[in-house]
Amino acid sequence: MGRWGPDAAGRFRAAAMELFGEIGYEQTTVAAIAERAGLTARTFFRYFTDKREVLFSGSERLQQLMADALAQAPAAATPIEAVAAALIAPAEFFNDELRPFSRLRNSVIAANAELHERELIKLARLSAALADALRARGVGEPDASLAAEAGIAVFRVAFAQWVAESEQRSYAEIVRGSLARLKALAATA
Amino acid sequence: MGRWGPDAAGRFRAAAMELFGEIGYEQTTVAAIAERAGLTARTFFRYFTDKREVLFSGSERLQQLMADALAQAPAAATPIEAVAAALIAPAEFFNDELRPFSRLRNSVIAANAELHERELIKLARLSAALADALRARGVGEPDASLAAEAGIAVFRVAFAQWVAESEQRSYAEIVRGSLARLKALAATA
Repeated sequence: MGRWGPDAAGRFRAAAMELFGEIGYEQTTVAAIAERAGLTARTFFRYFTDKREVLFSGSERLQQLMADALAQAPAAATPIEAVAAALIAPAEFFNDELRPFSRLRNSVIAANAELHERELIKLARLSAALADALRARGVGEPDASLAAEAGIAVFRVAFAQWVAESEQRSYAEIVRGSLARLKALAATA
Repeated sequence: MGRWGPDAAGRFRAAAMELFGEIGYEQTTVAAIAERAGLTARTFFRYFTDKREVLFSGSERLQQLMADALAQAPAAATPIEAVAAALIAPAEFFNDELRPFSRLRNSVIAANAELHERELIKLARLSAALADALRARGVGEPDASLAAEAGIAVFRVAFAQWVAESEQRSYAEIVRGSLARLKALAATA
């Protein structure tokens, strides 16, 4: 459990992911997660509202990190360059230590319709947050919404590659490659 | 009710949209829809599984129409040109007669979290269908997924413009404009 650190939230996360992988998301109870973590259910609820939150508690932080990076991009950056800065921002977070967790999380979400819906909602919110941040930089419509949605398109595809079983490249390398492909594809429109 | 034609499905659709607008989606019952349409609830269930289906029954047809258009694009078409053909395909369907229905549908969906989730799922399926159709044309990954997701990005933004209250341009004109903007934005990546 070393990679989760000694903190309680990390221990719950590791225990939950082990159980999701072993017996499935639906069958895993908070009581079982707490037992596996060597902590109590009462403590679990100090960190997470429910077992679903174990999978999504990082979403708000990710959104804030990306929106901040977009806001702090150089004034001369084009809309898509500012979006690129937002997409690259979580590169340190999406590192090789996290990748096994992210792979397992991805397969748990793919196997459960309700979790898949939740993921789609988080991505829609992320897109809206990036469009807001672009408008705050003075980018008009429809460019702000288009650049944000195109950024989410790149993020979805790049993230799916990053968690693919055989993938070795870093998150940042994959995002840069996907942005370059989008540019090449769009040039032929 | 002329614009809905004399068919029962059209009468149910018109009655449902009137009621969604007047008393809200949640408060509208199938019994009330049937009464307004001058038909029976029993007949309603021959056309729709529930009141939600009134809003989404066109989704499968739309997806098929777009996937077929993508498959039938000229062999020399680039991936994004094939996606553009898919996006333009429903232009006759999204006409000025349908626009008031689409505007009302849009505001009903925006006001209801469950309907918004349903809409996100339909768009995710549409993206997957377009990526499938691109792979069937021999387009590799990640280009197929990227071109499909970029197409959905354009579709979302263009559709939101088309249903905006003050918008006069046709669906096809807006889609073409959005594709041109995506190309211009991506060129500066």
